[in-house]
Amino acid sequence: MKIQAPPGMRDLYPDDMRLQNWLFDAWRSVSRDFGFVEYDGPIFEYLELYTLKSGEGIAGELFNFQDRGGRSFAIRPEMTPTLARMVAARANALPRPIKWFSIPRLCRAEKPQRGRLREFFQWNIDTLGHDDMLADAEVIAALCEFYRRLGVTPEQVAIRFNSRALASAVLSRAGMPESQVDRAFAAIDRYDAASPEEFSRRWQEAPRAAASAGSAASSAKDNPAANEPPAAEKSAEPLARFVSTERVLELLKSGLDACAASVPDDPAVAQLRELTGLLSAFGVSEYCRFDLGIVRGLAYYTGPVFEATATAGNLRALAGGGRYDNLTALLDGPRVTGVGFGMGDAPNIEFLRDLGGLPTLTDGLTAFVIETEESAWTDALGVLTRLRRAGIAADCSYRRAALGKQLKTASSRAARFAVLVGGEFRATGSVDVKCLQTGTQRRILLEALLSDPGGTLASLSSTG
Amino acid sequence: MKIQAPPGMRDLYPDDMRLQNWLFDAWRSVSRDFGFVEYDGPIFEYLELYTLKSGEGIAGELFNFQDRGGRSFAIRPEMTPTLARMVAARANALPRPIKWFSIPRLCRAEKPQRGRLREFFQWNIDTLGHDDMLADAEVIAALCEFYRRLGVTPEQVAIRFNSRALASAVLSRAGMPESQVDRAFAAIDRYDAASPEEFSRRWQEAPRAAASAGSAASSAKDNPAANEPPAAEKSAEPLARFVSTERVLELLKSGLDACAASVPDDPAVAQLRELTGLLSAFGVSEYCRFDLGIVRGLAYYTGPVFEATATAGNLRALAGGGRYDNLTALLDGPRVTGVGFGMGDAPNIEFLRDLGGLPTLTDGLTAFVIETEESAWTDALGVLTRLRRAGIAADCSYRRAALGKQLKTASSRAARFAVLVGGEFRATGSVDVKCLQTGTQRRILLEALLSDPGGTLASLSSTG
Repeated sequence: MKIQAPPGMRDLYPDDMRLQNWLFDAWRSVSRDFGFVEYDGPIFEYLELYTLKSGEGIAGELFNFQDRGGRSFAIRPEMTPTLARMVAARANALPRPIKWFSIPRLCRAEKPQRGRLREFFQWNIDTLGHDDMLADAEVIAALCEFYRRLGVTPEQVAIRFNSRALASAVLSRAGMPESQVDRAFAAIDRYDAASPEEFSRRWQEAPRAAASAGSAASSAKDNPAANEPPAAEKSAEPLARFVSTERVLELLKSGLDACAASVPDDPAVAQLRELTGLLSAFGVSEYCRFDLGIVRGLAYYTGPVFEATATAGNLRALAGGGRYDNLTALLDGPRVTGVGFGMGDAPNIEFLRDLGGLPTLTDGLTAFVIETEESAWTDALGVLTRLRRAGIAADCSYRRAALGKQLKTASSRAARFAVLVGGEFRATGSVDVKCLQTGTQRRILLEALLSDPGGTLASLSSTG
Repeated sequence: MKIQAPPGMRDLYPDDMRLQNWLFDAWRSVSRDFGFVEYDGPIFEYLELYTLKSGEGIAGELFNFQDRGGRSFAIRPEMTPTLARMVAARANALPRPIKWFSIPRLCRAEKPQRGRLREFFQWNIDTLGHDDMLADAEVIAALCEFYRRLGVTPEQVAIRFNSRALASAVLSRAGMPESQVDRAFAAIDRYDAASPEEFSRRWQEAPRAAASAGSAASSAKDNPAANEPPAAEKSAEPLARFVSTERVLELLKSGLDACAASVPDDPAVAQLRELTGLLSAFGVSEYCRFDLGIVRGLAYYTGPVFEATATAGNLRALAGGGRYDNLTALLDGPRVTGVGFGMGDAPNIEFLRDLGGLPTLTDGLTAFVIETEESAWTDALGVLTRLRRAGIAADCSYRRAALGKQLKTASSRAARFAVLVGGEFRATGSVDVKCLQTGTQRRILLEALLSDPGGTLASLSSTG
């Protein structure tokens, strides 16, 4: 019987796995260099950890099940609830600030269709227990550093930031009633600078159509429930009735100064100005820009929010996050402030591939051991063992074959060196080491090779 | 509302995560040095991938669920079915031998109770497409190398090997009917050298009691279905009726030569002799010994089988595996032979902890940046940024504080160096670098530090 991988799930063959490990290593290096420490939690949680925050409706968007004891669980769709639970459980014992990162495996019950993954990985960085903008600026700086290290320029990726409080204040000031702000956010969240006509149409039409299109932009750290039509949507008034299309488009193109001018005393203005200054101190201003259109779908954000998007193409959301200041209290923990972001693996791999920014990766086999005569077979296995014990990635041909055939196998395995073991080894303990790139070959005592493998092999690579 | 981690699931706080990463790194290093490449698959598979091999009964031991399209899935309880599926799908395209490893996250619906994990990780190494004993010997050598690198001696861990074919032949020769062999294996699988009385009782009593005790020893790569009572168990004859207790105990203590003496022409004898020779060539004979009592629960093994167990304490199974030669055909793939093992994280961490073999791990923060006067705060953030961009794990104090307090924070973060930034930095570009272990402090140009961080910091550590 033929059985395939479940729809929307990926098989990671070695080529895919190398790329994934490379991405994870990049995530880990940036995290550690920024002083974050790694954590992880269970692959599934009690279902109520998710329904508590998002309502029962969320269950249908998760893979959920019961055990034989009748307890309900769901495979985690995001890491933040687990983080909040773990921090709440030890809130008083953990030294502040809590700077944690994780690379969780996550699942969402998306309808199976091309390009919609049901399983993915995400880089999460969070700082908890510090409400200064320094924490916000630092996680954004880590996000920028990830792209900088991979050679992605500020021309190719933009970190756009805003705060929901500021957007709310500016819209109110422009005439939007309090009751309509969530609806306005939902429309703005889908604003695409590439097609303002589409946005204008939505802004001017009756709300039902506006709320049913789904949210394409807000994917990275969003709660799936955010796609549900907001309650206020039952009003039949087009948003343009409150704030004209021209005015909202003008606001969406405005910088922080222009937006601040309409609500100069709002605390969110001072907060974003402080954030801007700190982003400059962290040397990442070039990547970052204020954008009133970034409101993020998720209601739990209480301060600045931000998104990384590709500047070309279809404005893909590559990462997103913001400040959430009360998640732990929901779990009966003490109030702990937090800020963080999530970055999915798949959109970023695609983005980097489009930019030509993916490396060529190989297995990294260093040595391939070859016996030059049949009687040396057992000696060859001994040499192989000595190399491996010295931490040298080494292999040999499984089938006995002629020298030429074995050398060919060595090349196909992308080995850097061939180590030839023949009668000479038994007599004197020496092997012939051949650099497969330069062709240089040298006879050397195995003991000498093992006592300084790096130096010996480097000298063979450099001489031609 | 207070919500806890689900029963049998672990929260990995940073201290636990460091240990896990350390173990995974050790697994990865050995795998790569032995020429294995990493792969991974989905966290859940179609349920039938498991029922196909083990029958519908297995579903109750898995976490299984349906999506909205009515498809049935189960969280993977072991990696081998995924491996077989992936290899079967590309059997003709993959160069042989296929040497793969993985570190899957796995779940089993164990009854929640102390010490019984529902979620765990496992190191899997498999060689497919090569039926020579070389493949078997090599995976066993990799297993031994893992323990050797961690300082675990042959006195502390034993790799015991056998083959089901040999055990079957020897038992038949001793008088056990073919129909009773599975039952005999189930009894033998639970043989514990520490309490032969317990085994003798089971061997002599009516079968019902013998089959219901569960299998404690065969955990590492076993299919949970293996714990089901075998069909032959309906026979009411005690096993001692066929082979006396004295004789079976004698056989269980016999070496390969003594066992082989009763069935000298059985192909399994030649196979195990070849394996023994290759284990010697790989230099791991000291760790390995023949043991007729190792039969492994899992029916899919077709050749040699082996288990790693601690030699002291309660003979915990630390790893187990063997040769399985027809898994891919079950999935409509071409017949591909295979051999491999699985090693669980939890029992090995416990084993190493008992031996005192776990390292003391820290966050690995290299530098802690401190501003020595308030006006240097922005400069300090700039220095911090430069260090991080150079790949130096660095952090600073989130709250402005006196020098002494910041130094204390640096120590509590286990930083190796403090980098002091004051007015001098703005004037000359130099900082004071203080080794927090030796107390040595030196003024140095930031540029000089960044151009050779390793050398600069090493020189500070070595002078007192």
